[in-house]
Amino acid sequence: MQELKDRILKDGQAIGDDIIKVDSFLNHQIDVTLLSAIGKEFRDRFADTDANKILTIEASGIAIACAAAWHMGGIPVVFAKKAAPNTMTDGYYFTEITSFTKRSVSRVIVSKKYLGPEDRVLIIDDFLAHGEAASGLAGLAKQSGAKICGFGAVIEKEFQGGGDKLRGLGYRVESLAVVSSIEDGKIKFSY
Amino acid sequence: MQELKDRILKDGQAIGDDIIKVDSFLNHQIDVTLLSAIGKEFRDRFADTDANKILTIEASGIAIACAAAWHMGGIPVVFAKKAAPNTMTDGYYFTEITSFTKRSVSRVIVSKKYLGPEDRVLIIDDFLAHGEAASGLAGLAKQSGAKICGFGAVIEKEFQGGGDKLRGLGYRVESLAVVSSIEDGKIKFSY
Repeated sequence: MQELKDRILKDGQAIGDDIIKVDSFLNHQIDVTLLSAIGKEFRDRFADTDANKILTIEASGIAIACAAAWHMGGIPVVFAKKAAPNTMTDGYYFTEITSFTKRSVSRVIVSKKYLGPEDRVLIIDDFLAHGEAASGLAGLAKQSGAKICGFGAVIEKEFQGGGDKLRGLGYRVESLAVVSSIEDGKIKFSY
Repeated sequence: MQELKDRILKDGQAIGDDIIKVDSFLNHQIDVTLLSAIGKEFRDRFADTDANKILTIEASGIAIACAAAWHMGGIPVVFAKKAAPNTMTDGYYFTEITSFTKRSVSRVIVSKKYLGPEDRVLIIDDFLAHGEAASGLAGLAKQSGAKICGFGAVIEKEFQGGGDKLRGLGYRVESLAVVSSIEDGKIKFSY
């Protein structure tokens, strides 16, 4: 998605050789015009699937999932919640997600009321890096018996392997900007 | 907003005499069609303001703020982030917000890059209860020198006093559904 790649080059910030900050338009301040274009792009890429629900994770995935859902005819969004360590998990699907960036483990839950075997979910998030969040969301979907139609990421950091891991498992992955490397503060795209 | 009140009565869940769960359409699963209608309603109610930015807080405020921003001609959304206790706050406006529901105190930050004296912000959130989140966001806006155009809440729990506290301070508050009480599991609206 050229518009997105141009924006990343213009306003994104490379930190070290593995972090891309997109706080100015996606992750802290949100450009809702770009957000809508991102939603449309996901709709086009997944037009041949029969997804009836979008699954994402709070917080940064929510806006993106809603934009995609809106353009996909208004299908519901379900966002997995980060639960406090002492939260009861009765009535919830539950998993743990490791964040490499934050060096932490989050307990993540989705109510059994909002995901089940009748669902065909598209899993959408802002970043696809090591694939921990995506795998966690896939685990929640699998617990529910839902069919996974595919994964959509706004930015895939190809060099961290999460996308290829999912593709290797047979999943369809659509990333709107694929970063091959960060070298000397420069973000390089593979396509 | 009649559509919203009807939906709260149909799908909302009263817990005890002070909690309203709207997990099925707003806070965990999101009905993006209703979300867009909510965004339009905020646009109409604040049509006479010159807001150039929407300020909200993760996670549940994000979708609502984006829907409103989209209908307001695509103004940017900034969402305050909950920071880990050991997070450096250099370069950030910082405050603490007490949650009565979660019985916790959150450290909340907004980057100085995305809020400043040139901004005229509309503060939007899902619930307005005791007003702690709204006051915290107002505090962040004030630190930045931004003008506060008003507060928009999807659901105001009038009996918890946050809305009146803000009105008493001279702020404009627009709540799309105002709950006067919860009695015997029944949600009552004042208007």
